[in-house]
Amino acid sequence: MDLAAILTRIGAEMQAAPDRGRVADYIPELARVSPDHFAMAICTAEGETFTTGEAETPFSIQSISKVFTLALALGRLGDQLWTRVGREPSGLAFNSILQLEHENGIPRNPFINAGALVVTDAILAGHKPREVLGELLRFLREAAGEDDIHINRAVAASEQATGHRNLALAHFMAAQGNLLHAPELTCGTYFHQCAIEMSTRQLARAGRFLMNAPGLPRMLGAARVRRINALMMTCGHYDGSGEFAYRVGLPGKSGVGGGILVIAPGRAAIAVWSPGLNAQGNSQLGTLAVERLARATGWSVFG
Amino acid sequence: MDLAAILTRIGAEMQAAPDRGRVADYIPELARVSPDHFAMAICTAEGETFTTGEAETPFSIQSISKVFTLALALGRLGDQLWTRVGREPSGLAFNSILQLEHENGIPRNPFINAGALVVTDAILAGHKPREVLGELLRFLREAAGEDDIHINRAVAASEQATGHRNLALAHFMAAQGNLLHAPELTCGTYFHQCAIEMSTRQLARAGRFLMNAPGLPRMLGAARVRRINALMMTCGHYDGSGEFAYRVGLPGKSGVGGGILVIAPGRAAIAVWSPGLNAQGNSQLGTLAVERLARATGWSVFG
Amino acid sequence: MDLAAILTRIGAEMQAAPDRGRVADYIPELARVSPDHFAMAICTAEGETFTTGEAETPFSIQSISKVFTLALALGRLGDQLWTRVGREPSGLAFNSILQLEHENGIPRNPFINAGALVVTDAILAGHKPREVLGELLRFLREAAGEDDIHINRAVAASEQATGHRNLALAHFMAAQGNLLHAPELTCGTYFHQCAIEMSTRQLARAGRFLMNAPGLPRMLGAARVRRINALMMTCGHYDGSGEFAYRVGLPGKSGVGGGILVIAPGRAAIAVWSPGLNAQGNSQLGTLAVERLARATGWSVFG
Amino acid sequence: MDLAAILTRIGAEMQAAPDRGRVADYIPELARVSPDHFAMAICTAEGETFTTGEAETPFSIQSISKVFTLALALGRLGDQLWTRVGREPSGLAFNSILQLEHENGIPRNPFINAGALVVTDAILAGHKPREVLGELLRFLREAAGEDDIHINRAVAASEQATGHRNLALAHFMAAQGNLLHAPELTCGTYFHQCAIEMSTRQLARAGRFLMNAPGLPRMLGAARVRRINALMMTCGHYDGSGEFAYRVGLPGKSGVGGGILVIAPGRAAIAVWSPGLNAQGNSQLGTLAVERLARATGWSVFG
Repeated sequence: MDLAAILTRIGAEMQAAPDRGRVADYIPELARVSPDHFAMAICTAEGETFTTGEAETPFSIQSISKVFTLALALGRLGDQLWTRVGREPSGLAFNSILQLEHENGIPRNPFINAGALVVTDAILAGHKPREVLGELLRFLREAAGEDDIHINRAVAASEQATGHRNLALAHFMAAQGNLLHAPELTCGTYFHQCAIEMSTRQLARAGRFLMNAPGLPRMLGAARVRRINALMMTCGHYDGSGEFAYRVGLPGKSGVGGGILVIAPGRAAIAVWSPGLNAQGNSQLGTLAVERLARATGWSVFG
Repeated sequence: MDLAAILTRIGAEMQAAPDRGRVADYIPELARVSPDHFAMAICTAEGETFTTGEAETPFSIQSISKVFTLALALGRLGDQLWTRVGREPSGLAFNSILQLEHENGIPRNPFINAGALVVTDAILAGHKPREVLGELLRFLREAAGEDDIHINRAVAASEQATGHRNLALAHFMAAQGNLLHAPELTCGTYFHQCAIEMSTRQLARAGRFLMNAPGLPRMLGAARVRRINALMMTCGHYDGSGEFAYRVGLPGKSGVGGGILVIAPGRAAIAVWSPGLNAQGNSQLGTLAVERLARATGWSVFG
Repeated sequence: MDLAAILTRIGAEMQAAPDRGRVADYIPELARVSPDHFAMAICTAEGETFTTGEAETPFSIQSISKVFTLALALGRLGDQLWTRVGREPSGLAFNSILQLEHENGIPRNPFINAGALVVTDAILAGHKPREVLGELLRFLREAAGEDDIHINRAVAASEQATGHRNLALAHFMAAQGNLLHAPELTCGTYFHQCAIEMSTRQLARAGRFLMNAPGLPRMLGAARVRRINALMMTCGHYDGSGEFAYRVGLPGKSGVGGGILVIAPGRAAIAVWSPGLNAQGNSQLGTLAVERLARATGWSVFG
Repeated sequence: MDLAAILTRIGAEMQAAPDRGRVADYIPELARVSPDHFAMAICTAEGETFTTGEAETPFSIQSISKVFTLALALGRLGDQLWTRVGREPSGLAFNSILQLEHENGIPRNPFINAGALVVTDAILAGHKPREVLGELLRFLREAAGEDDIHINRAVAASEQATGHRNLALAHFMAAQGNLLHAPELTCGTYFHQCAIEMSTRQLARAGRFLMNAPGLPRMLGAARVRRINALMMTCGHYDGSGEFAYRVGLPGKSGVGGGILVIAPGRAAIAVWSPGLNAQGNSQLGTLAVERLARATGWSVFG
């Protein structure tokens, strides 16, 4: 299989795609990004890396950070994390507050905003925000095997200034006894984790540990990796998760910055970036590109 | 891998399991079934079949029939089916009516009751209920390669007598213009499809076409099979779908009769039966048994 | 106070009103009624009757019938009716099914459709639909002191043919054990009660017993009358009840045929009819007309 | 009518009442109040005042303050307030966040917490919290004709420390563009207004302007007074408003401190206090006491 050729062809097709979606506008700093960017990178189980497009340009990983904080939290707390957050698709938007009211402040899963706030709150136990963010960056750098991964302070400040919805979620969970820290502290840490910037190539490399393949960086036990992949499959694209599984057939996690991390278990870690989003807040071209990749490679886990 | 030994061990473990769940009590005819039954069957891509427990005893497949009516509907209507039913997890119980009110009577997916009624309603177009049920039985017999598959009329009558909830769903969708036939007609057909009885071995054999493996009965194109598997993964266990993916890592579809059909793409079709259910209405021991099988075989699609 | 002059003035103002709302279109037989009709009638505690407009033209009273079936049900069953239906505003549309799912099939109040179905179902106990409809007509004729009040069979048939939403409510409540009769039977009776036709003058006269004034027909004890008025105030206009209380300040019950029955306790019974509806399904001009009447007379109960 | 005797009898009956409800426990400072307190006061249109029980003991008026801030806001902003808050019963608990998500952050009415926060936020425009609280106290002192009305700083601090739910509501509305000030500022002012303490006698006197009777303090135009009464009738007791209208038949506003302000338009302003609450968060004995008063006096507005 000539992955380089496949990637090149997909890159060319995406350049010509008529509908690039809409760049997220609720975080001012992100609203300025052009929808014309496109990049895709693949790291194989054999250790090769292929890229197309602007694969070295850093972008805001946003909610993709939730995969890595979940890995950190599971590594540190183990299954006791699941007393505070569920493992089911919510059937609602990424920032919905509806289910919390009747479900005792226990978010449905760690990939919707409420759930990710709980995960970050859990990692914060006994630590300062600065320490947690340092640990997260170290995790990402070790996973990627690269040091040049940073937080964009301007983006973090922009999220903080417009973060009322997340603060509402945090206060609501605090009122229901499912937050250990002050909402401002947990949200502040969360805003910074979302503001981490990585290039598409770095993101694919950082995702290699989720392949569960030999000879690659091992950040977590194999059973935990499988479970993170399962959650990415059922919950990784909010109320577009079913559609992503249907079209692509691989576990993935999207971010509002237009990135998606996709795992072909045992075979490859894939990152794609295109800032225009579809109605569910997932990258329009990114989804299309990985759908074509899955078709060309036969990597769908569904046969 | 010694599948026979693995199956035997799991069968023994299940015999000793302390918590067998509760048999569904809202369909009188099913409430009489003992929770002590257990059976499991595996058909491999290589054409072998392994069983443990009462694998020849017929049971009511109930909602597992939704997989086969979906296959029929996709074969006959193709993607135009998706104008009437979605592809997302609902985040709600199997028989919930909540989302219909604000979503124009379009059910979230074909595996919740409302969605399955739409699928049956779609197959009915231009046909009599008797013809549709005949076609479904022929489909199952051909897929299983066995003729001894029938509808249990007593169970169908029992469902009809207590089917108010499904009739409510059907009338509600009729009011919103998403039902082609009289609610009584569509529901009547649906109650009969749910009352089909198969043995655990027959069910595993009927599921072989979902492996997408060469040399097996081919009932549908490979792309459609992948998509059915994707829907089974994200929606096959109602509001327990995330948990099933997390624990088992394979696409599956459960029925309130205690059966589950599970697919290991490219590798095996698995059926399990134990009538006691968990809180989400899925077989308690059945789920545990396939979880152990997935662990023992390494068949999880998640690496 | 010159009620005749006030009525004449309001009638003239309504003739000139620019926005008459939209005639209900979901019951075909009602959709054919012209929005140009207008009539208003007042029966005072002193026994006088004043009218303006087409006060002798019969129209479909629709949901206003719910006031009279509630009176019948309370007269026959007393407070045990309240085990099956609540007394709170629903905060939702007249035909919403949402609250039933999580509230055990107990409708919020007797004036939303689900609640009215329960009331009719309660009156049916031990009786045939024909008997119940006969009793209701006798009640109305006695209350109005007129015999010429009938059911329009064409309207009843039209509602039956398009009554899926009400059948959905009835089946849903049947599934939850809050319906004594077959949904078709209860709904059939309900469709006929809604198809009763009365003139605006007849409706005002039939409402006199709700004034709790001496010397008028007495159909129910004073305490029960007060409570029916209270329910009309908080729940009589569905999710427009708060607005009606705010603007008019009197208890009232609207029907989708464009009628409203309004009570000024101790003072007057008022009926108004204009078929064009506002967004909440209540008569647009009817509401405006009684708002002006309340202002001109100072009859608001709120001081 | 011997109001003094009626009050004395009701007071005695309440002393003997077996079920006093439960004191609110989510505000620590309030949780310490004994459920044994009881007081009732009536100010008539003729200028007389009658009391029973501990009518001089100050208690925390809590949500009853919402009536007075609404009066202030309507006096200052007029009907433009209604672009930011509705006039319908919510059908949900006092602190529910559910409707905000799908209704653009516009609370259903000014008496649920979200709506009261919007009212306070509106009064804050161009003013400091201290100024607004000063104006509110002046309003209350003028309405009551007494100076000894104050904010209990310890209660305000207690609410602040446990006010996550209200902060969640405020942040949620801020995210939807329906809050002019920082959530902490609006909530801080709100917590202080709720912590105002008045005696039962003072509260009845402060409510006199809502009678719309001649010769009494006039704080607002007659039409506005009527409308506030209408809102108290349909929304004053949260999801227990229908029940209060049904049992008592008078507009009222309750507070979680166990107080209720009730208006008999044109006749009397009534205050009652008993700290034990029913399931909807309204005073258990207070409701019973005004129910008996309404029956004894015939003051129900419903005839």
